[in-house]
Amino acid sequence: MMPVSPDDHAALRACAHAMADAARAAILPHFRTEMQADNKAGPGDFDPVTVADRAAEAAMRDVLAELRPMDAILGEEYGESAGESGLTWVLDPIDGTRGFISGTPTWGVLVSLNDAEGPVMGLIDQPFIGERFEGAFGRAEVAGPMGTRALRTRAARPLAEATVMTTFPEVGTAQEGAAFAVVAGAANLVRYGMDCYAYALLAHGQIDLVIEAQLQPYDICAPIALVQAAGGIVTDWNGGPAHGGGRVIAAANPQVHAEAMAMLP
Amino acid sequence: MMPVSPDDHAALRACAHAMADAARAAILPHFRTEMQADNKAGPGDFDPVTVADRAAEAAMRDVLAELRPMDAILGEEYGESAGESGLTWVLDPIDGTRGFISGTPTWGVLVSLNDAEGPVMGLIDQPFIGERFEGAFGRAEVAGPMGTRALRTRAARPLAEATVMTTFPEVGTAQEGAAFAVVAGAANLVRYGMDCYAYALLAHGQIDLVIEAQLQPYDICAPIALVQAAGGIVTDWNGGPAHGGGRVIAAANPQVHAEAMAMLP
Repeated sequence: MMPVSPDDHAALRACAHAMADAARAAILPHFRTEMQADNKAGPGDFDPVTVADRAAEAAMRDVLAELRPMDAILGEEYGESAGESGLTWVLDPIDGTRGFISGTPTWGVLVSLNDAEGPVMGLIDQPFIGERFEGAFGRAEVAGPMGTRALRTRAARPLAEATVMTTFPEVGTAQEGAAFAVVAGAANLVRYGMDCYAYALLAHGQIDLVIEAQLQPYDICAPIALVQAAGGIVTDWNGGPAHGGGRVIAAANPQVHAEAMAMLP
Repeated sequence: MMPVSPDDHAALRACAHAMADAARAAILPHFRTEMQADNKAGPGDFDPVTVADRAAEAAMRDVLAELRPMDAILGEEYGESAGESGLTWVLDPIDGTRGFISGTPTWGVLVSLNDAEGPVMGLIDQPFIGERFEGAFGRAEVAGPMGTRALRTRAARPLAEATVMTTFPEVGTAQEGAAFAVVAGAANLVRYGMDCYAYALLAHGQIDLVIEAQLQPYDICAPIALVQAAGGIVTDWNGGPAHGGGRVIAAANPQVHAEAMAMLP
């Protein structure tokens, strides 16, 4: 039996949106507050980023307890909860913590639904902008300041004309960073610091590649679902499944994926 | 006679906001369009980024022609226009072009009013988010998704606990980049890729330092006015005025400014 039947799609999507709504409400009161801004210099161990993270994951788990008590959960803050449906919700309440504590608008709430094969639905939500990217069951769209739009990754272009994003200039280990630098050096434009928002821009047809290393499963499951639903491809650096984390390459199309993969170890 | 009397403040602020409104309307139709996204690979020389830049500066100049025909203008796209009031409007219709063509939400419209001493009023506007940072005549505030808030830079903390931003990992020349790396290495957190939004976050009390090189006057005049009105300090790397561009350090307070300056050539 298929774990996700088409009859379930609307209910699963509604559940994911309810979770993202709950996370927004839990996080925004902590964003750009004095407390948050001053925390690094303050005494004691009170960490409002962790407060926001935990409050958001707890709020999402409350939604699941009500709507989907039969599903498993893997969350960054509260770990694994067993289920019996064959489906697992993978949650990162704040992806891009360093961006969050710096006040940037490029961190996000990640919600993914996985079956035994990997992610089948994913949301990247940016609460401050009020922008939500959704990839679900072969359909991708964004709802935000400019309304609702269908998402489609870019058509193929040579790497020499492509835009590449990664979060940190120092990608992973020294060896991984050197490998990234080879691809970056062959691209037209390289941009840093966008956290999970880079995958949203890839799904949106604005850039061509996102390359990262040392990811956790909860960092990458929602981006995989979004990018794939928009027509892109996400693998590890060897071309295998990426939903376990580690070294990841996300591409707008198979051509630029292949061109970049040929340069990675 | 002082070029800007307190009686003029309300009218000058209203003019700056009308200019930023006009720039928003001119730019947003070009943001994240297929045309823009596909331009890099397309044939011919049509460049929608330049179209948006020029349309926005022209729209701002139209506002000035109506409201402030006596003032001079320095704009990135259309250069200098003479005036007779002793005041100059300094305009960058899209600061962060590389971010703009990548679809990020961290580029901005920069509007500054300068007298003979330098900037006295500045706006950083992010049209997509709908967020506007204003520093004018000793008062700084932001209006955006979370309402309107007064802005104040962070209190002093050691560089070892500070957050530093710059746009590119490769800041300026190799020598300038090496100097930046020394400061970055002594900081708690370094973030890249925020374009003019980094100065907005500095004014907002979210970060401690922005360090850049090879700036143009129109890149830095509005950030200077904003950061200074919020209580911060902006100079060149030798402690002199920064509104001419070049190497710039913007700091939340004199203490962290001095600590970082001691490491710069």
